[in-house]
Formats: sequence, structure tokens, C-alpha cells
Amino acid sequence: MRPSSSPSEALLRGLSGTPDVDAELDDQHLLQAMLDVEAALARAGADVGLLPGPVADEITRHCRAERYDPAALGAAADAAGNPVVPLVRELTAAVAEPARPWVHHGATSQDVLDSALSLVVTRAAAVLLRQLDAAADTAADLARTHRDTVMVARTLGQQAAPTTFGLKAAGWLLGLVAARSRLVRARETLPAQLGGAVGTLAGYGPDGPAVVRSFAAQLGLAASPLPWHTRRQPILDLAAALGGLVAAAGKIALDVGLLAQTEVGEVTEGGAGRGGSSAMPHKRNPVDSVLVTAAARRAPGLVGTLFAAAGQEHERATGGWHAEWEPLLELVHLAGGATARTARMLADLRVHPQRMRANLDATGGLLLAEAVATRLAPALGRAAAHDLVRRAAARPQFRDALLADPQLRAHLTESDVDAALNPAGWLGCAGQLVDLALDRHREQP
Amino acid sequence: MRPSSSPSEALLRGLSGTPDVDAELDDQHLLQAMLDVEAALARAGADVGLLPGPVADEITRHCRAERYDPAALGAAADAAGNPVVPLVRELTAAVAEPARPWVHHGATSQDVLDSALSLVVTRAAAVLLRQLDAAADTAADLARTHRDTVMVARTLGQQAAPTTFGLKAAGWLLGLVAARSRLVRARETLPAQLGGAVGTLAGYGPDGPAVVRSFAAQLGLAASPLPWHTRRQPILDLAAALGGLVAAAGKIALDVGLLAQTEVGEVTEGGAGRGGSSAMPHKRNPVDSVLVTAAARRAPGLVGTLFAAAGQEHERATGGWHAEWEPLLELVHLAGGATARTARMLADLRVHPQRMRANLDATGGLLLAEAVATRLAPALGRAAAHDLVRRAAARPQFRDALLADPQLRAHLTESDVDAALNPAGWLGCAGQLVDLALDRHREQP
Amino acid sequence: MRPSSSPSEALLRGLSGTPDVDAELDDQHLLQAMLDVEAALARAGADVGLLPGPVADEITRHCRAERYDPAALGAAADAAGNPVVPLVRELTAAVAEPARPWVHHGATSQDVLDSALSLVVTRAAAVLLRQLDAAADTAADLARTHRDTVMVARTLGQQAAPTTFGLKAAGWLLGLVAARSRLVRARETLPAQLGGAVGTLAGYGPDGPAVVRSFAAQLGLAASPLPWHTRRQPILDLAAALGGLVAAAGKIALDVGLLAQTEVGEVTEGGAGRGGSSAMPHKRNPVDSVLVTAAARRAPGLVGTLFAAAGQEHERATGGWHAEWEPLLELVHLAGGATARTARMLADLRVHPQRMRANLDATGGLLLAEAVATRLAPALGRAAAHDLVRRAAARPQFRDALLADPQLRAHLTESDVDAALNPAGWLGCAGQLVDLALDRHREQP
Amino acid sequence: MRPSSSPSEALLRGLSGTPDVDAELDDQHLLQAMLDVEAALARAGADVGLLPGPVADEITRHCRAERYDPAALGAAADAAGNPVVPLVRELTAAVAEPARPWVHHGATSQDVLDSALSLVVTRAAAVLLRQLDAAADTAADLARTHRDTVMVARTLGQQAAPTTFGLKAAGWLLGLVAARSRLVRARETLPAQLGGAVGTLAGYGPDGPAVVRSFAAQLGLAASPLPWHTRRQPILDLAAALGGLVAAAGKIALDVGLLAQTEVGEVTEGGAGRGGSSAMPHKRNPVDSVLVTAAARRAPGLVGTLFAAAGQEHERATGGWHAEWEPLLELVHLAGGATARTARMLADLRVHPQRMRANLDATGGLLLAEAVATRLAPALGRAAAHDLVRRAAARPQFRDALLADPQLRAHLTESDVDAALNPAGWLGCAGQLVDLALDRHREQP
Repeated sequence: MRPSSSPSEALLRGLSGTPDVDAELDDQHLLQAMLDVEAALARAGADVGLLPGPVADEITRHCRAERYDPAALGAAADAAGNPVVPLVRELTAAVAEPARPWVHHGATSQDVLDSALSLVVTRAAAVLLRQLDAAADTAADLARTHRDTVMVARTLGQQAAPTTFGLKAAGWLLGLVAARSRLVRARETLPAQLGGAVGTLAGYGPDGPAVVRSFAAQLGLAASPLPWHTRRQPILDLAAALGGLVAAAGKIALDVGLLAQTEVGEVTEGGAGRGGSSAMPHKRNPVDSVLVTAAARRAPGLVGTLFAAAGQEHERATGGWHAEWEPLLELVHLAGGATARTARMLADLRVHPQRMRANLDATGGLLLAEAVATRLAPALGRAAAHDLVRRAAARPQFRDALLADPQLRAHLTESDVDAALNPAGWLGCAGQLVDLALDRHREQP
Repeated sequence: MRPSSSPSEALLRGLSGTPDVDAELDDQHLLQAMLDVEAALARAGADVGLLPGPVADEITRHCRAERYDPAALGAAADAAGNPVVPLVRELTAAVAEPARPWVHHGATSQDVLDSALSLVVTRAAAVLLRQLDAAADTAADLARTHRDTVMVARTLGQQAAPTTFGLKAAGWLLGLVAARSRLVRARETLPAQLGGAVGTLAGYGPDGPAVVRSFAAQLGLAASPLPWHTRRQPILDLAAALGGLVAAAGKIALDVGLLAQTEVGEVTEGGAGRGGSSAMPHKRNPVDSVLVTAAARRAPGLVGTLFAAAGQEHERATGGWHAEWEPLLELVHLAGGATARTARMLADLRVHPQRMRANLDATGGLLLAEAVATRLAPALGRAAAHDLVRRAAARPQFRDALLADPQLRAHLTESDVDAALNPAGWLGCAGQLVDLALDRHREQP
Repeated sequence: MRPSSSPSEALLRGLSGTPDVDAELDDQHLLQAMLDVEAALARAGADVGLLPGPVADEITRHCRAERYDPAALGAAADAAGNPVVPLVRELTAAVAEPARPWVHHGATSQDVLDSALSLVVTRAAAVLLRQLDAAADTAADLARTHRDTVMVARTLGQQAAPTTFGLKAAGWLLGLVAARSRLVRARETLPAQLGGAVGTLAGYGPDGPAVVRSFAAQLGLAASPLPWHTRRQPILDLAAALGGLVAAAGKIALDVGLLAQTEVGEVTEGGAGRGGSSAMPHKRNPVDSVLVTAAARRAPGLVGTLFAAAGQEHERATGGWHAEWEPLLELVHLAGGATARTARMLADLRVHPQRMRANLDATGGLLLAEAVATRLAPALGRAAAHDLVRRAAARPQFRDALLADPQLRAHLTESDVDAALNPAGWLGCAGQLVDLALDRHREQP
Repeated sequence: MRPSSSPSEALLRGLSGTPDVDAELDDQHLLQAMLDVEAALARAGADVGLLPGPVADEITRHCRAERYDPAALGAAADAAGNPVVPLVRELTAAVAEPARPWVHHGATSQDVLDSALSLVVTRAAAVLLRQLDAAADTAADLARTHRDTVMVARTLGQQAAPTTFGLKAAGWLLGLVAARSRLVRARETLPAQLGGAVGTLAGYGPDGPAVVRSFAAQLGLAASPLPWHTRRQPILDLAAALGGLVAAAGKIALDVGLLAQTEVGEVTEGGAGRGGSSAMPHKRNPVDSVLVTAAARRAPGLVGTLFAAAGQEHERATGGWHAEWEPLLELVHLAGGATARTARMLADLRVHPQRMRANLDATGGLLLAEAVATRLAPALGRAAAHDLVRRAAARPQFRDALLADPQLRAHLTESDVDAALNPAGWLGCAGQLVDLALDRHREQP
């Protein structure tokens, strides 16, 4: 077969990804990672004494991606079912005669591709983490700056009670911090793969485990006690970590999109020149929010696919393994786009405290109903207090209705009622919670 | 943002797709489809009398993909959230002054991209259906050729009773035939999209529905009574049809992979030069089976994603729509790879009737236990007959044990037993069913 | 093993389902369906002359669910892997001696359970369709009543241009109508299953196909030309139809939830006594919208699971089949809850046209920017017209800014501008489209 | 609405779950957990000095599930959208007058239900872990016992080279060990939920964080620095851990099912009385393998659903939260069934070393082709060695063909060839790897 075309690469792909992460996932980088693995294999063999050092040097010398043609390798992969087989053939042909028996020595295709994907993901994760840190730092700034900016909290789509924009941003921050820790852990424990044809390390005699350790160390990856050809917990850890990261970004984007609704108007996506509409000149679309939300719709299917692919037979699988490659890279791609856009969205976010306050006041104190009920509950009992407040809330003017209620007036003065109706007095521990979140962010490893 | 890199396009993508289908999905083809839509829009406007014919001609003249740079459009798409906005800008700049107000007249980005994706999918489906027909024809040939080739039927992984390879192939055939009918239906009903900014066709005055009909006719797509910007049944129909197609191919691949197991050996994937192993020179891997199985693991997640994306707000969605583009194209891509590989796998399949017969005989007649029990049931009752047979089946030599059983001998002679133990005598309606399946294939529209 | 407990049946399950549909899915109904299948099998055998009519009568007489204990059958199922094996044992023991050999004659467990599930789903679908029709009728009423009720259309979360509530409701209606047609088709083509142990109909001699036809007719199900033990398109058709139905309901619920936001306030869920909050006496939560939205989040995973389960081996599968049972019933359950709640939500919906109008006016005519640009485009060119309007839109008072623009005033009078700024004049074909949708609803089969 | 019926609870549910885990998930246990949460809330309030100790005692006294009717609560839940609202109403009515204002003080429904589900999952996980440990211990026993039992390793469905059954079991073991560590971690970090109506802890004044810490301590759950009403990483951690556990069990079941195939016959599921077929008296179905495989097909969709549900708006979500409840419990249910059945399957597994050896020998030494090639590679070069061996492998008698090859005979003697063809000599580090896995199991925390 001739090489496949790229599906709408240029037109659509940039909208779900980000160049910095995508660059790590491209053919050149995957090919280089595969060659890095072949080189590490040779050096590990030399390290343990299985093959001469100069042989390892000779092999390493030819492990440079620019010497091979990804399109030709891809086309040749069709016969073998993976691109490692033709690459090993070409690498073997490239090295000097004495080194040839030692190319890919003791390894199987899956050793190379799994290890290469581990490398690629590790390298991409470095970029991802930088983007994530930028987003988290900005969320922390927002939390700090707006620690006491009063706004409406909304539950089930309804205005509910006062909160602060700082606390909302602190929640975003903690979501990113938690996702970060999962990704760091999944990355740190991501192992090199080396088992040989059937996972017995048969090509290395008794030195197998030593070769595995050296090989992993060369690659800067964790060493697994046993090959994991059909035991895919490391892939599941990655899937969950990346899926969690996209979800954390998606929650922020969802909130931003809702806050940016014309009728709410509490934030605006601020990037110059972004968000124009083809048909409606006045419109300012929250483009980053929309695109991150789109990524958040797509990631769960990929997470599920990777969990489904984990059912792998015997010593190497009939399809489960092959099903992982593109979804794993796609999930990294989406996580890249989601974190980069979240970082940009938060950095450019314009926050409108006056609109927040206006929305808070729009219902004439109804949002403080719980505050009033709480003040009344000790005297009237919780149920009676709630009933009284609910009755007043059903009347046109809540404050007036409250003050007109003799049962209430038996326990509260007008100034008690006004104090209860002041949003800044019903923020609970919002400030403390912001500080806790900022501490957590500061202390993260 | 600069354009994103292509994620491991050349190295991996050919293993899940096929060039003929992927060519329909690439940037050039999507871009041309978008321009076809702009041209159709202009011609529909002229058709209805909204704009002069020469204006439509001028616009159409510039609707050629080679005049635009997908990478530049993709990069510019970041600001707008979709690639239609910059394309319309460029197209407008390209046409002569008098035509400019009429470029993209009355349309919104989603009109163009939805209609373009409908076109792309329709065109790709033509290739898909050819591949599918090739696979189905080959399955029909196998069913016809092996109508009476006796083999073991297996249930829950256990040898169960005789069947024919023809009946197995007839089942594969019907799976493809059913999937075909779903894809044909989804494709025939796939509508053009035209609603304008908010789905009211506000740009066209009272002529809106006429513009929509002409527009759809120009594109060779169905016309929808109302815009379907946030009513995504057509996408769900495609998702289900494509997912069903991959599943039908996946079932065949699963069977082939299991029949090709060394211990079973009833078929071999036959393609010259395919399936060699990097580490094991003697091995012949069922590569097409494996790769189709991999596609079958991936498609359900994409189907689920498209159903999840269907929750779209108001008149146009905040992310749900954007989440569809790549998964839909990816599903077409996987369906392309799965059907092409299934067609090749079946065409090259080597079938081993002797091995089938040997496997059938390996358990010494145990597979005919039900045949014996059925012969005994009228006399002994079903339960007693089964008990008798089960006792005999637990002994080392089934036939001898049967013949040694006095209760059995009271009702059956040795030649009755041998007749019962002849697999060809316990094939039920296998032949008739093969014929029914071939009829169904022949009669499909 | 002893029977499993019910997982939070009473406390949670009612919130995702609805009693009328759930009743069709319970143990009694599934058991009765299994027994209906056994009875139909006996009668089909008698019909074809394989067994005496009185035997079929005797078997039928014992096919009443109340005679068997689901818990005991469930417990006994553990040894066999399905509940058919113990049920056949009990049914055989129950009938008179001469009928025993004919109980379950020629069938396999999967024949009974697949056919029984087809029956259960068919019966539940009758309820589903009634609920769906109620929802659709109410959506049609809303579309008719509010055909000309002007409101804001929103795209990407932003106010975009005028539309009518009637057109929004017409879109909801068409979503339900389309989902209905898929469910009706999936249901009408849902086949009975009969293949015997390995799909050859070995127990029936040459009469197999005749038995299958009679059996299907007895059950009121479609007849499949071949058994579909491992060819699961009918399940995929159901999955897609049910998933599409939940998606159609979910789209309505999403819109209602967003329209019910405190800041938007254009509709209120109206049911008496529903939506109270435990903590906030003033709140009115859109409970039905929320619960339907929840169902819409869950259905795609079940759709994906059923597509994933379709990879079924050989003549009967090692797990794929078993994986279908509960997800299929769960999807029916969710579709029940989603349609019932959607019907109730629409029936009780309180629509607030004044608030709709106020929201439309809140941006001072900006929503009519496209209308103004469209009026200007012929004179200035599309791009220049949009630029002019965009500049005016960036100023505090849009109308004033427009009127102050000399370029505009060269082409439009003040009354032209006011006409352009009248929302009722920029509704495009909204009314026609409502009528088309109502026609489509009226004409549905 | 009246309560919903239980969907095929008794007939089907036991086949996917296990009674010990399911008991933890039933109405009584969830209700008790909700009441435990209300009691802990009262005690935490008393602990911090917000309310009198005797009030907390009075509330605690009424927090016993047997005093409330789950069916009535479930029916009443329909109006509120969750079962906490009616429970709080009933609990408030039940306690003595002075305690009433303090029932549910400062909490919101989600605080109670999230904390209760954390409790339920924590308690169920204790059972899960016991079952998992039983499975792991048995896998360890198999690995130890069969450390040197030679068998065929299979890759892509083809016999590939020798391994040991011990190494296969060691891989199973490590899969369970890894899954265990994820579940333990997810369980240990599973937090109590307490935020009040909008997550500000407004009901507790400045003591909020102290109340949260005491509350979490009372429940034996982790304390979260901030409420996590719409920040769902803990749920994602659970989803991933449970999904990984089912996947680890599923991999074992998949291998067992394939090894139990009639043509392979290397293991048999051993449970007395299980696996009988309704139609085929001789068959022994690997029922536990099949049912665990079915669970493994279903879990990924639930994992994906929980990731999809994590997109939760603002301070409390419009559907995302409600979408979690049943899928989370369902995943625990499936993990219960999968671990219990895996433990039983491994405990009852009959291993057939002679059959393993026979399968190894069936291809006349071909599986040792790599061993021969490896011996030849230093002399001939890897490529030439592989070519030589591949040529020999294509001839009918591999050993004879090797010995007849003059190029080979220039380097290897007949006894060299026989040594290379001895499977026990080509096991690599299998034994060492088994020991490493057993160490890892022994050392797990």
C-alpha cells in the first residue's frame, strides 16, 4: 500500500491541539524515539558485556531520524503490522557488517514501540506540564487578586448564594494541581519495555534483568520488574492522568463559557482578534472556552478506548496493543490543546466585578434567603424558619416581605435583616479556602 | 499559533487506515468540499434569483482548493475557532469586487463546514462501499465454495458441534450486507446544512426554503426541512452506520484470527510477504486480522464520543459541534482501513478443510453428543437422554462407552450410533442457510 | 452463590428511570418473556409438525412466570453462566412426562435469552413511544403557540440574533420525530433468535427455516434469515436508536436548563412541588432538565459498550454476548426516564415571552447588527458593511453610533435603520420553518 | 411517581456481580451511609462547639437506616432530584424539637450524598480488596508451583517460543498487584464532602475548616482542603482504579478462556457443577472466564462515562453529578463480580502440563527457530541467520532441514542443534522473573 494521506491535518488539527505538544508527537519525533530505543538497547548490551562497546557506538551513530524516511517505513509497515520491522531492517543495513547481528538484539517490535511511545509521551508531558503550570499560576493569580470579589454562586443553573470569584478560581486551581500530580506520577512510573519475543528475555541469558535496568536507565524511564507487553496498567495510568487533565481544563472552560454568556457577562475572553463571527459583526465568541470544551467532550471516549484496549491476550496481543497507539497520542494531543488554551484563556481573561455585583443584586436579596433562615432557625426551628423565608421569597419584594412578617420581627430587627441581606456577610470561609488552595499550590512538589 | 504538526502520520496512520479512503479525508479534499459548498451557495442564490448568475459564476471560478493554503487557513482558524472564517475572508478577497457581497451570503460557518463534511463523508463512503462490496463478494464466494465443507462450530471457546465453513462465511457475508444497508441509508439521508447565523435563514427573505432545496440539490445531498445545527441525528446515523461496519469487519477478523491460531490452523492469512516477525523467523502473523481487530477496539469509543457530542445548546453549540469533526473523520478512516483489510484478508485467505476435519474428529465423536441425545430423547426423555450421553462423554472412548450402555442399546443399534456420530449428518439446515444468505446478498439494492 | 442484592434500587433508580418503562424490564417481565419464548418454540414445533399439538399446549400451560422463583433461578444461573439453563430444567420438571423431551427442543440458551430480550425491548418500546409521542405533541403545541414569539437566538453561548420560541420548539419536535423513526425501525426489524446449539438448526431437520418463521410469527418479532448469535447488528440498531432518543431529549433538557438560568429566566419548569432546595428556600431547581441531562451523559457510554460488545467469536461468544444484557436494559431504562421527564417538563413548562423580549432588547439592537450589515452590503460590499457595523457595535449606543456614521447615512435613512433594528423584521423564515416542522410531525407514519 | 421496578435484578445481576460486594451497595447500606453522614455532621458541629453535645447525640440516635423506608424516600426524591431532601425532612421530623434546627446544619444535599457514596465505596472496597488478595495469592501459588512448567508463549495468536506457566501466572499476579495499589490509593484519598450550599461553608462561620476536618475524621475519610462539588478528581481516581482492576481480571480471564479452548486444552476451569451446557452434554464451558470477560467489556464504558460526567458547572452541576451515582456503583459492582470470579477461577483452575508440553512439541521445533537463529547470528550475521532458519522452517521437518543445511553445519553440530531445540534451554530469565514478581507481591504494602 502507498502511504495514507493526512486527514485534515492543517485545517482542523490545530483547533484541538497546540503546536508545542504536537511537535513532540510527529513522525520525526516518534522515529527518533524508536531509534533512541535501539541505541539504548545496544548500549545496555554493551554495558552488561553482551556486545562490544564499539558495536554499540556504531549502532548509536546510525540512530538518527533524519537518515530514514518515515513515509517509506510507514508503507513497509503494512506487511509487518508495525513500523519497527522495516526500521530494524534499514538500521541493520545501515550499520557496518560487524554490528549487524547486534542490531535490535534480543528485542521484539513491541519493546521498541512501547519504549518509544513512553519516551514520546514523557517528552510531550514536559511541555504539557509547562503549559499546565502556566495555567495554574494564572488561576492562582486570579484567586489571589479576586479573593474578596463577591459574585453569585450558581447551583443547578440557578443563582444560589454569594461566593467570591477568588474561590471559584481557587477551585479551578486545585483541579489543575490535582491533575498535575496524577500526570507527574504516571510519567515518573512510565516504564521502558523490554522482554524479547515472548517476555522471557531469552536473548540475554541470565543477564536479562541487568540489561533491562541499564536499558531503562539509558532512556530515563522507569524499569519494570517484568515486561508489560500484555499488562497495560502504565497505559491506563497515562489515560487516566491525561483524561483527568482535560477534565480539569474542561471544567474551567465550562465555567468561563457560562460566565461569558451575554446575559451573565461576568467575564470576557480577552485575546485580541479572537472570537469574531463570520456572520455577526458584534459577536465576541469565547473561542478558547469552546475549543477546550470540545476537547473535554472527546477525551472520555479515548480514555474508555484505552481501558478497552487493555484486554490483551497471552504474551502479545491480537489487536489490543495496536489499538492503543493512536488514541494515546490523540489524548496527549488533546491535553496539549486543552492546557495551552486554558493557560491563554485565563491569562487573557477580563473579569467584570461590577457585573458580578449587579447579578448578585438582581434578585433583591433572595440569594441571602439561607442567611436569613439561618438567623431565624435557632428561634423558630429550621423547618419553620425555612417556611417563613420561603413565603417571603414568593412575594415581590423580599426585604419588605421579611420586614412585614410579625413572626420574624419577634426575633430580628430591621438592621439584623439588612445584615443578613449583605452578601459580604454570607461568604462563609471563602477567603480561608482561597488561602488553603494557594498554600496547596505553593507546596506542590 | 503556528500550524500543528501531524501526529505520527506516516509511521502509524497507514496501519489503521487505507490510502483510498484517507485521500478523501485530507486537507485538499476537505478544503475543496468547503469551496464546493460556497459555490453551491452562490449558485443556489442565483437559481432563486437572489443574486446575478455571473456573480455566482465568478464565485464558483474561485472555488478551487489549489488556490488556497490549508496551513495558512488552519493557522488563521485559531482566532475564529473554525477554518471557515479565514476561508471566507480569502475567497471574498479573491473574487471581483461586485461579487464580494455575495460570497458566503446568508450562511454561517457551520453551514459550510457541516455541508462540507457531509460531502467528504459522502465521497469517502463511495470508496468504502466499493471496498465493502469487494469484501462481501469474497465472503459470498467463500460461502458458496465451502457450502459443504464440514468444520467444528465453537461456542464459548469450546468445540460444540459440526457446522460448515460455508455457513460461517455466510454469517460474515450477512454482517457486511446489513452494515452496508445502514451506511447506504445514512449516506442517502445525509443532509446539506443551511440555516444562516441562527437557523432562521434570515439572509434570504421568504425564499429561504427554496434556497435550501437548490443548495442541497447542487451538492447532491439530502435537503433537511429545518437546519440541523444543534439537532445531530444525521451525525448519529453516520456514527452508528460506520461503527456497525467496523464491528462487522471486526467479527470476521476475530474469527479469522482465532481460526489461524497455531493449534487450530484452519485458515491462514495468505498475502505474500505479509506477517513476518522481527524476532521469530518461522512465524506467520495474521496481520490483517490483527489490524482490523485493533480498529474494532477503537471504533466504539468514537461512536460514543459522537453520541456524547450531540448534546448541543440553543442555536449553535459551545463545543459539542467542534468535538464532532475529528472523531467523525477518524471513524471514516477506521472504517476505510477495516473494510480494505477485510477485503484483502478474505481474498487471500487460505482455507484448510483437512485441518477442519481433523479438528472435528479430535474429540472422538463428542461433538455429536447432542445428535446422539436427540436420537435418544424420544425414547428416554430429554433429561435422561442427556444424562446417559453425559456419562458416556465422561469416559475415555465416547463411542465405545455409548455402545456399552445397555439403556442406549435398548433403543439404538451400532449403526444408529455411527449415523449419529457422522458430522455430515448433523449439519441441520447449514446448506439451506448458506443459500438464504447468498440470496439476500444477491438481492440487496 | 446466593443472590446479589439490588444496588440502591429504591433510592436512586427512580431518578434515572420511570416506573412505566422499568416495570417492563423487571424480573417478572423478563422471566415471562423467556417463558413466552419457550411456549412459542413448542407451538412453532407443533405448527410445523415436529411435535404433537397437545404437547405444545402442555408446555405453554406451564409457561407462566408466577410459577417460578427468579431469585432461585438467578442463583442457579451462576453455574451455567445464564438463567436459561436452570429455567429449562425447572420447566422440564414441571410439564407432564410426555412433553419433557420437547421442552426447549432444538434451542440453545442464547435463542431463549435473545428472543426474550427482543420481546422485553419491544414491549418497553411501546411505552417509550407513548411517552415520546406525548413529548412530541407538547413540543408541537409549543411550536404552534409560540410560532411568532420573538426571542434571542444564542450561538456559542452569546446572544446572536432574533428567532422565535416556536422555531426552537420546532427543532425540539423534529429531534423527537427523527428519534422516533429510528426507534420504530429498530423495533420493527428486531428479530427473534433461533439457531440451536451452533446456528445450524440441527434439531429440526430440513424444517428449520419453517420453524424459525413460525416461531418469530408467534412472538410478533421479525424473522432473521440466519441466526444472529454472533452477528449483532440488531443490537447495534437498538443501541443507536435508544442513544439517539436520549440525545434528542437531552438537547431539549439542555436548552430548558439554560433558558431557566436565573439571569436568562425565559422559561421555568412548572411542576408543583418540584425543584425545592434543601438549603435554599428561594430556589426553584429545574429538576427534570437536570435529570434528563444526567441521562444524556450516561447513554453514550452504554451505546459505546454495546458496539464494543459486538465483537463476538465464532458461533457463540465468550463474553461479548453476556456483556450486552444489562447495558441494553439500562439504555431502555434511561430512555424511559428521559422521555417521561421530557414529556412532563414540556407539559409543565412556563414560558415567559416578556422576559424573552427584554433579553432581546438588552443589548440595544446589537443583535440586529447582521440585519444592518445585510442592508448595507449591496452598497458598501460585505466586508466594508461588516466593518462599519462592527465599529458602531463597539460604541456604547449602537443605534446612535449607526445614525452618526456618514458612510451609513449615505445609503440608509433613520427609518431604514429602525426597520433593520426591529427584531420581528429579521426572523427570516422562522414561521415557515415552524410550519414545515409541524407538517413533518403530522405526517409521520 | 411511584417507585421504579428493579430491572432484572435477580435473574441477571448475580452474573455480573457478587453478593458480598453487592450487599454493600444496596439501599439499606446507602441509606445507612447517608445517615452516618448526617450523624457525623452533627457530631462534628458539637466537636467544634457549634451545637450542644446532647443535640448531636439525639440526631445520631435517629440515624439508623431501619427507621426509614427507602421506597418512600426514593419516590419522594423525584420532586427534589435527589433522595437527601426527603431524608432530611424525615430525620428532622424524627428528632426531638430542640435538635431540629441542627439536623443537616450547614450542609447541602450533595455533601450528604457524595460523602455517603465515599463511605459506601470505601466499605465495598474492603470486600473487593479481600477478593483481590485471594485472587493474587492464588496467582502467586500458581506462579510458584509452575515456575518451571514449560509451555508455549503465543503472540498475535501464533505459537512463538517457549515460556513457563509460572511466568504467565506471574504476569497475572503483577497485574493484580498493580491494580491493588491504585485502588488502595484511590480509597485512602477518597474525601468526605462538606461545603454547604455553594461551597463556602457559610453555615459555620469561621469554624468551617475545623468542622470539615472533624467531619472527615468521624467518617474515616480523607479531608479535602476545599469542597469538591464540581472538581471530581476523586471520582476519576476511583473510576480509573476500578477500571484497571476489572482490566487486570479481564486479562487473566481472557488468557484462561484461550488456554481452555478445546484445541489448546492447557487449563480447565475446575469448579464442580459449573459450565454445563443446555444443549451439549459433553461441553464444559469456562463460565467464570466468560463472565469476567463480559465485565471487562462493560467497565471501559463506565470509566468513560465517569470522565464525561466530570464536566460540572459552577458551584454544583446541572446533571454531571447526577450522572455519576449509578455508573460509579455499577463499576464497583462489576469489580466485585470480576475479582470474586477471578479468585474462584484461579483457585479451581486445573493446569495440564502434559498438554502444554504436547502443544510445544506440535510444531517440531519451529518455536525454537529464534534460538537457532541466535546461535547462528554471531557467525552469519543476524539477517543471514534468520534467512537460513526461515528457509528451514518452510520445509516439512524443521530439524532435518536444519541439519541438512551446509551453511549451518559449518558452524553448528547436531548436538548444538538439539540443544538449541530444547525448550527448557530457551526460557531466558523466566525463572528469575517469576521470583521478582513473587517478591513484589510479598513486599506490597
